[in-house]
Amino acid sequence: MSHKGLDYETLNENVKKVQYAVRGELYLRASELQKEGKKIIFTNVGNPHALGQKPLTFPRQVVALCQAPFLLDDPNVGLVFPADAIARAKHYLSLTTGGLGAYSDSRGLPGIRKEVAEFIERRDGYPSDPELIFLTDGASKGVMQILNTIIRGEKDGILVPVPQYPLYSAAISLFGGSLVPYYLEETANWGLDVNNLHSSVAEARSKGITVRAMVIINPGNPTGQCLSEANLKEILNFCNQENLVLLGDEVYQQNIYQDERPFISARKVLLDMGPPISKELQLVSFHTVSKGYWGECGQRGGYFEMTNIPPQTVDEIYKVASISLSPNVPGQIFLGVMVNPPKPGDISYLQFMRESKGILESLRRRAQIMTDGFNSCRNVVCNFTEGAMYSFPQIRLPPKAIEAAKKLGKVADVFYCLKLLEATGISTVPGSGFGQKEG
Amino acid sequence: MSHKGLDYETLNENVKKVQYAVRGELYLRASELQKEGKKIIFTNVGNPHALGQKPLTFPRQVVALCQAPFLLDDPNVGLVFPADAIARAKHYLSLTTGGLGAYSDSRGLPGIRKEVAEFIERRDGYPSDPELIFLTDGASKGVMQILNTIIRGEKDGILVPVPQYPLYSAAISLFGGSLVPYYLEETANWGLDVNNLHSSVAEARSKGITVRAMVIINPGNPTGQCLSEANLKEILNFCNQENLVLLGDEVYQQNIYQDERPFISARKVLLDMGPPISKELQLVSFHTVSKGYWGECGQRGGYFEMTNIPPQTVDEIYKVASISLSPNVPGQIFLGVMVNPPKPGDISYLQFMRESKGILESLRRRAQIMTDGFNSCRNVVCNFTEGAMYSFPQIRLPPKAIEAAKKLGKVADVFYCLKLLEATGISTVPGSGFGQKEG
Repeated sequence: MSHKGLDYETLNENVKKVQYAVRGELYLRASELQKEGKKIIFTNVGNPHALGQKPLTFPRQVVALCQAPFLLDDPNVGLVFPADAIARAKHYLSLTTGGLGAYSDSRGLPGIRKEVAEFIERRDGYPSDPELIFLTDGASKGVMQILNTIIRGEKDGILVPVPQYPLYSAAISLFGGSLVPYYLEETANWGLDVNNLHSSVAEARSKGITVRAMVIINPGNPTGQCLSEANLKEILNFCNQENLVLLGDEVYQQNIYQDERPFISARKVLLDMGPPISKELQLVSFHTVSKGYWGECGQRGGYFEMTNIPPQTVDEIYKVASISLSPNVPGQIFLGVMVNPPKPGDISYLQFMRESKGILESLRRRAQIMTDGFNSCRNVVCNFTEGAMYSFPQIRLPPKAIEAAKKLGKVADVFYCLKLLEATGISTVPGSGFGQKEG
Repeated sequence: MSHKGLDYETLNENVKKVQYAVRGELYLRASELQKEGKKIIFTNVGNPHALGQKPLTFPRQVVALCQAPFLLDDPNVGLVFPADAIARAKHYLSLTTGGLGAYSDSRGLPGIRKEVAEFIERRDGYPSDPELIFLTDGASKGVMQILNTIIRGEKDGILVPVPQYPLYSAAISLFGGSLVPYYLEETANWGLDVNNLHSSVAEARSKGITVRAMVIINPGNPTGQCLSEANLKEILNFCNQENLVLLGDEVYQQNIYQDERPFISARKVLLDMGPPISKELQLVSFHTVSKGYWGECGQRGGYFEMTNIPPQTVDEIYKVASISLSPNVPGQIFLGVMVNPPKPGDISYLQFMRESKGILESLRRRAQIMTDGFNSCRNVVCNFTEGAMYSFPQIRLPPKAIEAAKKLGKVADVFYCLKLLEATGISTVPGSGFGQKEG
């Protein structure tokens, strides 16, 4: 045996197969240019604080006080922190055993899971069970855990929208499963045609693949659309017929930039439909403090909520979560404040609302500017960004550019994005990185 | 197809195979009793803050200020925070792009990786490369990532000490590999006999298993011993002969309760040995803010450092780390302060040293009390806890107890631990949970 355990030749093949576009070739080149002193604007990942968005004050005050509990006895604390942040910090510390420095239960602090359940109930109009809510280090960790629970091997398929956020393709590769793509309709504002789902499943079956779950990203990443209630119903019926688990990536539920089509959770639509489907369909929904108008990406706080998942399976998911002991506790506190923000009458209410509105209006304004801007360019069309924080324009490249790319052995859109990066310092992700069809 | 994707019958078999003793039957029963109002002392996981250990003040001040950067402009900030904590917070914020709310590079902030490299150089006397240090959400996430990179299937074996910390057995099951046990010598103060390693590898080979890596936990969990330099040399030579990656779990390196056998890192011993082995042996070392005298478990800050790992493999590990975007940023700041604590002359130095000494002396005192206490009991013997924060006593059970356990279908030590829990509220982990031999 001449190879060592971490020689490239002998690594886990699933690890090698992973492709991760949002931090791939473009990101590496951009990082190089940044090291050389060039000013780079990273748009490859939704990371608003890195682009200058200020954090909301109230949650930061609460978490800072939880980190420094000795301040709570300091007679000067009222000079730098408002009373409601102090009260809230005491509340969250009382939910822990030993403050932020102690591991919590592997599912997260029970008191915060209760606050999340209350938030979901207010949002959907149906009670939610804290025992079926698990807190995670960001939503992506939760998505990965659920996919790992489902995928048994390469014959297990997961339906994923294309264009898609590459977390899904990467995680499915890592766990050795098969990605079964379904295409969103660019000409129908990135809507979802259920006929496409049927043909995707049929095609996968013809290859011997058992489709086990379906991912929806609503509002869409990278496409920015909001799914309508009617569309969600079709999707739920489809999953029920096909015995698929529905994974609802709803991390952009607070990022809505139009009034015609508000966000509706898959869970609300499911429970509105009533039995039998409301008692049968297996649904896991994801949310996070990284998106919304909070944009607290670096804190890594998220949760998933399970509907109609058998108790024995919930126990298995709990067991695996236990291996890494507990999600980070400060991230859990952020999640608590997010689902339970200052209320009218609280000292911090007005400032919190002013800051929140400021951020949301700015995102909304920029969504409009962005898509208007794209559409005013020659050879560029782009659907309006209804939600999330992304635009996915179609850019018609001149034949000469496509030829030049070919000569360098690059996909045409990667070539374009590299040129854009070198010329302007704007780091983007080529459409092919999201699995989009050519053109 | 009558089963749904998350029905227990259809789950990933590797998930089902995972056993996780430290949060298994005993932990669940203890949680139940706690819910019923009984006072429970959890000793199943090293979680010192949950048992009343106070956090060190300086790192908490720094992280609180990083969470609340608006305080840095507040004229009253000097009333509640010392000047060196303020300066340090400004330093760490300057290492980020957008503060704690922005994703960092997936390997962690470059500036903090540099501080970790400097710490390693001071500790070992050899320079360390920040590009080969990855920050993680606690050490266990790093261990899992490396094991996932190595393990290709059930024919890949990992040598793990027994008794062992169940993270290893659980993660190896989850990734579908085979655990190859080697037994520590209880009668030789839990030392490591290289002959045992050879016979473990031979036995695994006879079953068609390729042993690919070896785990050492130094200081030991759950056994509390420190490995000597001579013993480490033997281990390194053995791994080199057998082409094994050495995974050095060194998270208790700051928890040493005797002076005869100080902690020495596997890396220092390796580099002291000189070429060819120092240029060949693949080593990954793990550390964390959860242990030591910090005990900041809930913050989830850790790192791993790679020695002699091929660049192409490092790229693969980076790629997979990118899927979950970035480790939590506050945990990275804790790690920065841990490897770069206040220096003589700093305003906070004396308080920091006083607090650190207080905790370490208390741990040391308790290690002595604990092992003395065990050894003063009839039918109990226990090696002295040289490091870490655990004792692993041998308890001779009366034949009647063993019989009673058998009647209930329980392993005898599980039965004993359950009885201990019900009678005293002390939640422990049975030795069988660590894979120890019977008796």
